[in-house]
Amino acid sequence: MTASSRMSPLFTDLYELKMAQAYLAEEMHAPATFSLFVRSLPPERNFLLAAGLDPLLDWLEDLRFNEEDIAFLDSLESFSQRYLDSLRDFRFEGDVWAMPEGTPFFAEEPLIEVVAPPAQAQLVETLVMNQVHSATVLASKAARIVLAAEGRAVVDFGARRIHGTDAGLKSARAYHIAGVAATSNVLAGRLYGVPLSGTMAHSYVQAHDDEMDAFRAFTREFPETILLVDTYDTLSGVRKVIALARELGEDFRVRGVRLDSGDLATLSFETRRLLDEAGLGSVEIFASGGLDDVSIRDLVRRGCPIDGFGVGTSMGVSADSPRLDMAYKLTAYAGSGRMKLSSGKRSLPGRKQVFREERGGRAVADRIARAEESRPGRPLLRRVLSGGRRLEETREGIGAARERARREIAALPESLRSLEPADPGYEVGLSPALRDHLDEVAERVRKQQI
Amino acid sequence: MTASSRMSPLFTDLYELKMAQAYLAEEMHAPATFSLFVRSLPPERNFLLAAGLDPLLDWLEDLRFNEEDIAFLDSLESFSQRYLDSLRDFRFEGDVWAMPEGTPFFAEEPLIEVVAPPAQAQLVETLVMNQVHSATVLASKAARIVLAAEGRAVVDFGARRIHGTDAGLKSARAYHIAGVAATSNVLAGRLYGVPLSGTMAHSYVQAHDDEMDAFRAFTREFPETILLVDTYDTLSGVRKVIALARELGEDFRVRGVRLDSGDLATLSFETRRLLDEAGLGSVEIFASGGLDDVSIRDLVRRGCPIDGFGVGTSMGVSADSPRLDMAYKLTAYAGSGRMKLSSGKRSLPGRKQVFREERGGRAVADRIARAEESRPGRPLLRRVLSGGRRLEETREGIGAARERARREIAALPESLRSLEPADPGYEVGLSPALRDHLDEVAERVRKQQI
Repeated sequence: MTASSRMSPLFTDLYELKMAQAYLAEEMHAPATFSLFVRSLPPERNFLLAAGLDPLLDWLEDLRFNEEDIAFLDSLESFSQRYLDSLRDFRFEGDVWAMPEGTPFFAEEPLIEVVAPPAQAQLVETLVMNQVHSATVLASKAARIVLAAEGRAVVDFGARRIHGTDAGLKSARAYHIAGVAATSNVLAGRLYGVPLSGTMAHSYVQAHDDEMDAFRAFTREFPETILLVDTYDTLSGVRKVIALARELGEDFRVRGVRLDSGDLATLSFETRRLLDEAGLGSVEIFASGGLDDVSIRDLVRRGCPIDGFGVGTSMGVSADSPRLDMAYKLTAYAGSGRMKLSSGKRSLPGRKQVFREERGGRAVADRIARAEESRPGRPLLRRVLSGGRRLEETREGIGAARERARREIAALPESLRSLEPADPGYEVGLSPALRDHLDEVAERVRKQQI
Repeated sequence: MTASSRMSPLFTDLYELKMAQAYLAEEMHAPATFSLFVRSLPPERNFLLAAGLDPLLDWLEDLRFNEEDIAFLDSLESFSQRYLDSLRDFRFEGDVWAMPEGTPFFAEEPLIEVVAPPAQAQLVETLVMNQVHSATVLASKAARIVLAAEGRAVVDFGARRIHGTDAGLKSARAYHIAGVAATSNVLAGRLYGVPLSGTMAHSYVQAHDDEMDAFRAFTREFPETILLVDTYDTLSGVRKVIALARELGEDFRVRGVRLDSGDLATLSFETRRLLDEAGLGSVEIFASGGLDDVSIRDLVRRGCPIDGFGVGTSMGVSADSPRLDMAYKLTAYAGSGRMKLSSGKRSLPGRKQVFREERGGRAVADRIARAEESRPGRPLLRRVLSGGRRLEETREGIGAARERARREIAALPESLRSLEPADPGYEVGLSPALRDHLDEVAERVRKQQI
């Protein structure tokens, strides 16, 4: 289990392989363009935050069928020998353009565009969507929680209730890009370099006959720890921390206390008062226990003396909005724009670019244009894979993506950074050239097909 | 990437390792009991379906720290050399009792109980919860969708929007246990033996200049396929399938058509009529596109001629209820019952058993009892790991778990099998002996701690 362990190309939908066999039989190997985008923002999100790209690109670069994979496909008695043989040489050789991680984006904007023979571009659809959808859902949720905390540290406690180990690991990375300070997940720390944080659990206190003994024993091992004080009664727990400070004198180096249940607002004020009266003004207060963006905002607005928040499940499953209407659609094949006409499901033809227009350091509008256009504003997509190989100059650490997110979220209009739905939302338009192309392709397809 | 590839023990919360070091320093190696349970059912669920156990047990059996793991922990400058050295010999040696997969269960019932030295039982907390929570969330959602479909096939299309690859794979397994017929995820088929299903995508149709050419080419490769007919206009798509039947004559073996957009009810009736008029009564109709339990129930109740449903995102993220209030709590240490007193968070002390009382083939009530009690009804928990090793007689294939789920869900009271909240819900009580033990432990803890 390492960051670079390979993913099997069988993490795909069966139909991708069937279509690939048909493309092979028909000799359809001309370049296809697929766009990954979100059809509309959920009402709970004023912007989305791009995440999930870097680990995905490593996987795409290394996709290989092994003999077990091929033998399994053979056992399905669905595939031709010619197709199965071709899989031994399969490589993903596409070009990929993408918004860098940490970029805020909006409905209909291409987040990733893949140009490859259709069999290759389709095979990776499931993996591309799976990785970018979940990381983006989770980063976008985390961005709200970080905004709500107004500068106080947010720590990720989500690993235990997030859906599976892959999301458990990559969420920590996505959260850190979105501004979360640290994670409790040790493996995520090892794989992705996310700072780690962790204190003690109720069970540790309970396993001791006396809460005070538990605090004494734990601080002997970890003098600068944060002590969990609510196992039995929060304020008695705080008084025991104060008693420990008197016992230890100058050796007392406890960094803080954690409140994990009850009325966190009231308890934080009373805890602060008890600590301050005991001369422990430097002992910080951390809060956790079912927190979410709205409850954190409320605690902050009430001026509660809380120095940091631990957030688990609501961030881990993005409880208010666990999915995005994300699609990966064919937009061109063999040089001609493509679209479907299914009701309510528009896709923008061809390869595209997004230009972000800024005035006085503030983002004011985005314009989606055809890829070859040059327009005012900053282009958001850049090429990250060429012929299936990573372009080294676009490789970056999560620190760079985190700094981008910080800068670009700060540059969004104020109303978008609120937890309330922004009305009007951010302006996203199409360039005249893209609009013309859209009309022309729609007209051609309508004539041809119906 | 195989079903049995190892999981690193660093998939844990940092505090588990810190507590483990403290337990080592304090020589606290007596057996601890931890219970995994759900505090309360979400309003959208009348029962939960246990899932996720088998792959978890394989991981627990094989947990080992490698030198890279230990070197990483050393680099944190938090851990003692004695503790780091002890990790080289770490094995999970606990006893584990569990409800078998496919068992319906309710609030407060122990789903899994772990008895092990506290350092071991805590280290696995994150992994146990992560795996059982997500599989149970997803199986419980799938059970509702299968009930709504009233015998029609449900196929899992969720891989692309589910959170990460691990959930993407194990969901298919959990869904199949819950009664879902097949998955589109090829790797899940290979790893877990779940039947596979997959047809064609819009992109394939779009890549061809003509929809009819796409149908012709695809059926040459896969004569018994299901054709996707809504890329441009659903009923023209159906007419092309009919034209293809005329072209191919006796060679026409297309199994069905798939509708993926628009008013599925109306379109299904019109499609059926067109197919029947053309003498294609055996061509089936499959529906997909944003379906969920409620919309499937409505289509079924309206008598729509739909033979099967493809369900993706709403099942993949359990959109109406993506998390459970699941907890893993210390309930005994060194032979004495333990509990915390934090407000609103009761846990039942000691090791326990759940007895399901049945009358005339119907489940009527569950009773949670102390482990050593013998009571009327069928005990639901059984030992699955002994000294960290799997008990071979409790190993079972997903077929057995699927059959159990079918049988036990059918035996639930009628009101619980509806999508509406059951009122009253299922009766779950405590045995008198457990109630006495609860009172006694609460009283002792209250006296000792406050």
